Amino acid sequence: MVSIDGERLLEGLRTLRSFGATGTGVVRQTFSDADMAARRWLQQQMESAGLEAGIDGVGNVFGRSPNRGPAVLIGSHSDTQPTGGWLDGAMGVMYGIEVARALGEDDATAAMAVDVVAWSDEESTYTSFLGSRSFVGELTAADFDAVNAAGESVAVALERVGLDSAATVELDRDRHAGYLEAHIEQGPHLEDAGHRIGVVTSIVGIRSIRLVFVGEQNHAGTTPMPRRKDAGVALFEFATRMRRRVAAVAGPTSVWTIGDATFEPGAESIIPGVARLVVQFRDESEAVLDRIEDAVRVTADEVARDESIEVTVSLARTPVPPADMAPMLRGHLRDAAESVVPGGWIDMPSAAAHDAMVLARHVPTAMLFIPSIGGISHDFAENSSDDDIVTGCRVVAEATVAILEASQR
Amino acid sequence: MVSIDGERLLEGLRTLRSFGATGTGVVRQTFSDADMAARRWLQQQMESAGLEAGIDGVGNVFGRSPNRGPAVLIGSHSDTQPTGGWLDGAMGVMYGIEVARALGEDDATAAMAVDVVAWSDEESTYTSFLGSRSFVGELTAADFDAVNAAGESVAVALERVGLDSAATVELDRDRHAGYLEAHIEQGPHLEDAGHRIGVVTSIVGIRSIRLVFVGEQNHAGTTPMPRRKDAGVALFEFATRMRRRVAAVAGPTSVWTIGDATFEPGAESIIPGVARLVVQFRDESEAVLDRIEDAVRVTADEVARDESIEVTVSLARTPVPPADMAPMLRGHLRDAAESVVPGGWIDMPSAAAHDAMVLARHVPTAMLFIPSIGGISHDFAENSSDDDIVTGCRVVAEATVAILEASQR
Repeated sequence: MVSIDGERLLEGLRTLRSFGATGTGVVRQTFSDADMAARRWLQQQMESAGLEAGIDGVGNVFGRSPNRGPAVLIGSHSDTQPTGGWLDGAMGVMYGIEVARALGEDDATAAMAVDVVAWSDEESTYTSFLGSRSFVGELTAADFDAVNAAGESVAVALERVGLDSAATVELDRDRHAGYLEAHIEQGPHLEDAGHRIGVVTSIVGIRSIRLVFVGEQNHAGTTPMPRRKDAGVALFEFATRMRRRVAAVAGPTSVWTIGDATFEPGAESIIPGVARLVVQFRDESEAVLDRIEDAVRVTADEVARDESIEVTVSLARTPVPPADMAPMLRGHLRDAAESVVPGGWIDMPSAAAHDAMVLARHVPTAMLFIPSIGGISHDFAENSSDDDIVTGCRVVAEATVAILEASQR
Repeated sequence: MVSIDGERLLEGLRTLRSFGATGTGVVRQTFSDADMAARRWLQQQMESAGLEAGIDGVGNVFGRSPNRGPAVLIGSHSDTQPTGGWLDGAMGVMYGIEVARALGEDDATAAMAVDVVAWSDEESTYTSFLGSRSFVGELTAADFDAVNAAGESVAVALERVGLDSAATVELDRDRHAGYLEAHIEQGPHLEDAGHRIGVVTSIVGIRSIRLVFVGEQNHAGTTPMPRRKDAGVALFEFATRMRRRVAAVAGPTSVWTIGDATFEPGAESIIPGVARLVVQFRDESEAVLDRIEDAVRVTADEVARDESIEVTVSLARTPVPPADMAPMLRGHLRDAAESVVPGGWIDMPSAAAHDAMVLARHVPTAMLFIPSIGGISHDFAENSSDDDIVTGCRVVAEATVAILEASQR
C-alpha cells in the first residue's frame, strides 16, 4: 500500500485555507489577491513534490512529473464561492500533491508519473470551468469577455494579475491515461448511510426550462373572478401540478427545483399580467431527463388551456448532458475503496457539476466523494472529519498506482 | 325634471381633460403643475356656477352654495393615477358643478343648496384620501410626512404649491344632509348586463394578509427531494389550495388576489429558504371577509404541517371595513334612476375604494356608477359613452332634488 502522510496532507490543507480564511470558511474568488497568492503557494508545493510547476495563461496551476508517461492527472479547483468552505476544490488539489509526494517517496512507485492541477474559476466568478475548458481546448473568444460581479472581464483580470492568456497547458493525449478528481460530497447521502467513500458513477445532467405566462393585467378589486386571466394563478397551478407529475416519472435520485419566480407588475392590488419562472432538473440519465422535460411541457400546455393563459416554454440555458465516469477508472477506484475501507463505500451519482464533467468529454475520468458533515457545502460551515479526508486520499493513491500499472502493461 | 345641459357637461369634462392630457388619457397626479392648474380652473367653474369657491389647505376645491341648508354635497376627486383615464374622479366633480348650475337655472330649485367638492389625492400619490379624510377630521400629523415617489412629503408639497395646511374646509353636520358621488364603474358588470346605472349598495371591505414561509436554503443539485424544506414549494401549494378553499366560502362578488410573491435568495440553483406573498380579498360583507380570512389561515396551517415549513401569518395593512351606503339616499338614487332609465339600473357593490367610503363614516352617503367601456380604468383607454355620462348626471340631479325636498319637510 502507498504510504500517505495524513498529517502532512491536513497541514497542507490548513495552510491553503489561510489564503482567504474568514472565520471557519474561505473567501478566495478567482483572480482575487487571495486566489493568486494561493496559486503561487500551490506552485511551490508542487515543486517541492518534485513536479515541474507553473501558473498557466488562465490561472491553472499545473505540476508536471519529470517521469515519462503514461501519467495520471489528479486535481480539482482552488477558487471558492463568494462565501465558500475550506474543502470544496481545495481538497482534491491537495490530494494530488500528497499522492505525487507519496509515490515519489517509495522506490516501488517513484518512477510513476503523477501530474497535478489546480483549475481556475470552477465556481463561475467570471465563467464556469474556465481552467478545465481551456485545458481541453473548449474555450472561445467569448469566454474572455465574461465579467465578474464588478464588471471586470476575464481578459482584463488576466492582465491585472499578470498572466499571458496565450501560454496555456493542454491535455496531452499521449501522456494522460486518466483524470482523477476527489471532492466532498456536498450532500447528505454518505453521512446518512454511514459510508466512508462514494465512487461516482456519473455526473448528473442539468436542464433548465424557462416558462413565461402571459395573462391580462387588471384591477384586483373591480375585475370579477370569472373574467380574470391571472398569470400568477397560472404559474402557481403549473408549479403544484408539475411537482406531482415530475415525481411520477423521476428516477430515485432525480432533483427538480423552482428557485425563483417573478410577477409583473408585482403589486398587491394588481392582477399579474405576466409571471415567469425557471424549473431546473438534474439526473444521471438522459432518458429520465427527457421524461421530466416532457412532464414540464405537458403540464405547461395543460395549465395554459385550463387557465386561458398564453405560455411560452424555452431553454433557460444550454443543457448539460450527464457525464458517465470511465468504467476502467471507476473499477480501480472501487477496488481501492474496498481495500482501504472494506464494505464502507458505495457507487453514487454526483448531483453537482465538477471540472471532471469537462475532462470526461476528452480523457478517461473518474471521481471519488468523501462525506460532508450535515451535507453542507458552499458555506462557512462546510466540513469533513480529518479521518475521512485522509481515507479519501489513501483510496486515490491506491487507485492511481493500479491505473498506472494497468496502463503500462 | 331638472334640465341638465349635456353638452355643457361634456364640454366641461373635455376642458378638464386638457389639464395633463396625454394621448386619450390624463397624467395629473396630486400637487403636480397640471393638478394645481386644474384645481384653479375648477374653482372658477364653481364660482361661475354661483358657488363661493376656494382651494383649501390640503388642495380640496370646495364650492359652497350661498343658499341656506340643508345642502347636498356632490363631488369626487380631480387627481389621477400616474397614467390615468379622463373620467375617473373628474366626472363626479363635473356632475356636481352641472347639478349646481342646473338647479340654479330653474326657479323651482334655485333656492336649494348644492355644495361641490374636488377632493385632493384620492389616488394616493402621497397618502390615500388626503382631502376627504381632512374634511371629516381624520388626518393625523403622520399624514403630512407621507411622501410621493420622488420623496417629497405632503408638508413640503403644500408649501411648494402655496397652500396653508391650517385653512381647511370641514364637514358641517348642521348643513350637509348627505354626500353623493358618481363614478365610472371601473369593472364590466354594467356593460355586460346592458344596464345604464348602478346604485351602489356598499363599498367593499379590503383585507390583506401577509404570509412568510421559512424552510431551509440549500443546493438545488445535492439536496435529495425527501430532505428538502423548500419555502417556494410551500408557497405554491398554499396558493393553489387557498384558491380552491376560498372559492368554496366566497360570496358571488368576492375577489381574492395574490399580486406578487418573492423568493429568497431567488437563484435558479438554490432551494428557496424564504418565500413571501400577500393575499388581498374584498367583499361587501364582514361575515364573508371573516370566512375568507379563516380559509387563508387554515390553508396556511395545513401547508406548514404538510411541508414541514414554518409559516407566519400577519396583517399586511389595516383592514378596510365595508362601507354601507345610507338607505335613504340609496332609495332616492334608485327612484331617480327608475324615472330616468326605467328598468335600466341595478343595485351593485363597489369593488373599488372611493372617497365616499371615508364620508360614509360621518354623513349619509350614496354612490352611483355608469358603465365603463370594456371595464377598463386607471388606463389611457378608460372611457364611457357620452350618453351614459349625461344619463348619470340626470340621475344625480333628480336624486339631489328629492333628497333636499325630503330634508326640508
